[in-house]
Amino acid sequence: MSQTRRGFLRRVGIAGGAGVMLHSMGALGLTSAHAAETPPFTPPKKSDLGRHGRKTVIVMGGGIAGLTAAYELLKGGYDVTVLEGRDRPGGRNRTVRGGDTITDLKGQTQRATFSKGQYMNAGPGRIPQMHVTIDYCRELGVPIEVFTNQNADAFLYRENVPGALNGVPVRHRAAKADAYGYTAELLAKATDQGSLDQYLTAEDKERLLAYLRSVGAIGPRVAGDPAASFRYTGGGRRGYATQPGAGLESGTTIPPYAMSDLLASTVGNYFSFEMGFDQAMMMYQPVGGMDKIAYAFAAAIGARRMRYNAEIVEYRNTTSGVEVVYTTPAGPKKAFADFAINTIPPHIAARISSNLPTAVVTALGSVSVTNAGKIGIEYDRRWWEEDFRIYGGITNANTNLGNMWHPSYGYNGERGTMIGYYNTGGNANFYGNLTPAERLAEAVRQGKKIFGDVYGEGITASYSRDWASTRFSEGAWVGWPGAIGGQTGAAYRSLLEPTGNVYFAGDHLSHAIAWQHGAMVSARVAVESLHARVTAA
Amino acid sequence: MSQTRRGFLRRVGIAGGAGVMLHSMGALGLTSAHAAETPPFTPPKKSDLGRHGRKTVIVMGGGIAGLTAAYELLKGGYDVTVLEGRDRPGGRNRTVRGGDTITDLKGQTQRATFSKGQYMNAGPGRIPQMHVTIDYCRELGVPIEVFTNQNADAFLYRENVPGALNGVPVRHRAAKADAYGYTAELLAKATDQGSLDQYLTAEDKERLLAYLRSVGAIGPRVAGDPAASFRYTGGGRRGYATQPGAGLESGTTIPPYAMSDLLASTVGNYFSFEMGFDQAMMMYQPVGGMDKIAYAFAAAIGARRMRYNAEIVEYRNTTSGVEVVYTTPAGPKKAFADFAINTIPPHIAARISSNLPTAVVTALGSVSVTNAGKIGIEYDRRWWEEDFRIYGGITNANTNLGNMWHPSYGYNGERGTMIGYYNTGGNANFYGNLTPAERLAEAVRQGKKIFGDVYGEGITASYSRDWASTRFSEGAWVGWPGAIGGQTGAAYRSLLEPTGNVYFAGDHLSHAIAWQHGAMVSARVAVESLHARVTAA
Repeated sequence: MSQTRRGFLRRVGIAGGAGVMLHSMGALGLTSAHAAETPPFTPPKKSDLGRHGRKTVIVMGGGIAGLTAAYELLKGGYDVTVLEGRDRPGGRNRTVRGGDTITDLKGQTQRATFSKGQYMNAGPGRIPQMHVTIDYCRELGVPIEVFTNQNADAFLYRENVPGALNGVPVRHRAAKADAYGYTAELLAKATDQGSLDQYLTAEDKERLLAYLRSVGAIGPRVAGDPAASFRYTGGGRRGYATQPGAGLESGTTIPPYAMSDLLASTVGNYFSFEMGFDQAMMMYQPVGGMDKIAYAFAAAIGARRMRYNAEIVEYRNTTSGVEVVYTTPAGPKKAFADFAINTIPPHIAARISSNLPTAVVTALGSVSVTNAGKIGIEYDRRWWEEDFRIYGGITNANTNLGNMWHPSYGYNGERGTMIGYYNTGGNANFYGNLTPAERLAEAVRQGKKIFGDVYGEGITASYSRDWASTRFSEGAWVGWPGAIGGQTGAAYRSLLEPTGNVYFAGDHLSHAIAWQHGAMVSARVAVESLHARVTAA
Repeated sequence: MSQTRRGFLRRVGIAGGAGVMLHSMGALGLTSAHAAETPPFTPPKKSDLGRHGRKTVIVMGGGIAGLTAAYELLKGGYDVTVLEGRDRPGGRNRTVRGGDTITDLKGQTQRATFSKGQYMNAGPGRIPQMHVTIDYCRELGVPIEVFTNQNADAFLYRENVPGALNGVPVRHRAAKADAYGYTAELLAKATDQGSLDQYLTAEDKERLLAYLRSVGAIGPRVAGDPAASFRYTGGGRRGYATQPGAGLESGTTIPPYAMSDLLASTVGNYFSFEMGFDQAMMMYQPVGGMDKIAYAFAAAIGARRMRYNAEIVEYRNTTSGVEVVYTTPAGPKKAFADFAINTIPPHIAARISSNLPTAVVTALGSVSVTNAGKIGIEYDRRWWEEDFRIYGGITNANTNLGNMWHPSYGYNGERGTMIGYYNTGGNANFYGNLTPAERLAEAVRQGKKIFGDVYGEGITASYSRDWASTRFSEGAWVGWPGAIGGQTGAAYRSLLEPTGNVYFAGDHLSHAIAWQHGAMVSARVAVESLHARVTAA
């Protein structure tokens, strides 16, 4: 790339903010093979407004979509007010720390007593490196650190399955080594005996066998003995009973699990997770808690533009703009603006009094709502590191726990906070219907199956979040049922366009539902659309 | 586990220091299924010495083995002096920062000009969570952070290979998705057509097909059409041209590489790396540089016990102990002690004047020496993050670069330092024979093949290390040739026992050669052995 093109791109990057530079590179054909495209975005510029004058926008909801919209509009010269029902920014982006007192919709109050420096991200907890969330961290100066989304030494646990691995916690690395080993052996045998000749050239076959020996750590061909050829017999990849050490200690390996037991256990179904587009390592988190993003946005927007404890009770299109009624300590207050961007969860927005057409209200209310739950459990020592040598990562179980997160911060410290469960759907509802004390007791009972009695020892604090009973959220995320056309149907499409002067945004209007990325890119499209309308006038 | 047993174990842990607790748990049969055993170690206790009196020990060499030995001996009540040829502790554990001026054995001087906060680990750079190195970080209070040893978005690059992927940088995630997809397809076909019936029960077969659908993201069985069944056709795992975004943007996928091209490229041979016992994620590094470990050891040992610039020129067993002659600014000086622990690289130790038996000197000199090289290149912006969305991890190439490390610290910051190459053997020697300026030029020339012109832009500092021409190391690590019996032969075994009052330690006397873990566990065994002899007297 010439200095001139580079210089151009850097100027574009500086002027345009997050994301635009990568997109410009793609547009110039510079990165087709190399760079990963984030969704294009042309942020409004103050200079665009000119004769159009300064427009006012009410952003309904101060979650990630609302904060992104307000931030980009302000940079573009708009006069913005954010109305947020909670007493804080971020919406589902919620970090719980010691001292936080939170009452759910059932009237249950929890006061979190986590120690200083300990926290749990009750909502989003991880950021893929490909998401624009990372760009906003850079732009807002929010330091990031690795979120450990996979760990070879974390456990996979399956119960009520056939075979010898029923109820046996297995190290991720052991399960993977065995599964890759056995399948490499089988494929090598099939290849070598000619079963796949119609699909493979002779060259392919030899290259495939070389690959399988590497990826599966399998033995060589044994002349005249197909059954003994390419055997997988375990090895160091799966871990040691005693690891390689000094002198003559070359390591004591552990025999592999039997193939039939491994297949029957279905632990192998966890392997695809780490290959997912938005779950593959590397993943990141803000240092100190996910809400650092929300507070950085709010600081950039400015306190006077952020109205907290402002629950919206009514909103209407008028001939010249919008009017929004919201709560204040002194009673309901009415605000006026040229436009509104509605980022409220659709199933909640559908209940708010408005003069929107019935079809739009119906569309908002047509989503399916998924619940999710999380519990943070603080221990007085990091036994998963000290006793099990698990430094970060996720232990998976097919119990009601679902996923257990070993913390990605504070390694080797005095204390640590496990996410004892992160689950969705029925399991989340099961925990949600318990009291906080019952949730902890059940989570500990289940956790002991995997980690033993230590799981119940030295607990110094806990907090559990049930998103279905969380005010202003009433669920973890929403989906678009096939019956109404999913994300190509009329209901979904109707919210991609403004209704009068009201725009809609949120992760629910993206193909990255339940990710902050989805909220951000949806908000940016709403901002672009609004700005195009203003500047076309 | 009962509170009593737990209490016992915690007391053992507190009294015994790093590692002993895990071992005690293993000895009690508590962790056979769960915990990962580190090599056992019973550290000396001051109370053991009693009537045996206070013994003096000279530790020859202040690398990781020497520091570990000195630290554990001091805790056990010994009077220890460390003699180190360099002006600093750590040996091959070497972090290079701005201002460091280093002259190699060829007389070439490099002055590193890295910016504040930027550094490169010229020697060891990563710590597996299973290694005792982690325990010493905890015990010494050295904060750790994730070392990003794999990254789905880093590149794999192969040139001079057949097929369409020759000279094409491919994302790790794309190569892996395709390789897993195609092999799953092939194995599913072979399984379904009955080619493997002698190895699989009917239940195994159905379970295997379910597993392959998951791990390979392959299509379903097509009735009556084996060739069309279980097809791999790509998908989001391998990345997008445009990733899923707002509204109707569900993501634009990129077609998979052709199977024959993928096999011919041999990129799949990289996949096994991340499954290795000591390379699987999670991996860690000290915050701020690997030498934080060395300096923490040295601080715990105490400045008055650490003699720097003390090159050992002679050492001898005497009737009552050892005498060691070492350099000082005022000329050679002789030191006496009851024992010595010799941690000097064996091929260098073999050249030092001594009265050791010829067989022992021959054993020391019988090792094979491997070279390794690294270059750190500081850039004025983190283009791998900004342009390529690669946050940490390793890009691999079959060029003379070998491995390129994207830095695991300073994410989203103003500057960053790539490890432009980490290579061994012939490639290391090739770079080692160039001048530092030539090394940078060649590394940039090669790097541009993968990352384009940006690889040569905005370079603000660099430093390259050739371990073969590094004084007091003369290589990266050593091995034990099969011709002399490898690590079970007489030469190796002869150094596991003391020669008179001289003990030997170092990673070269372990099964974790080239790892700090190996140096540590070898040192601990030498300490145990010495202490057993003292207390048996």
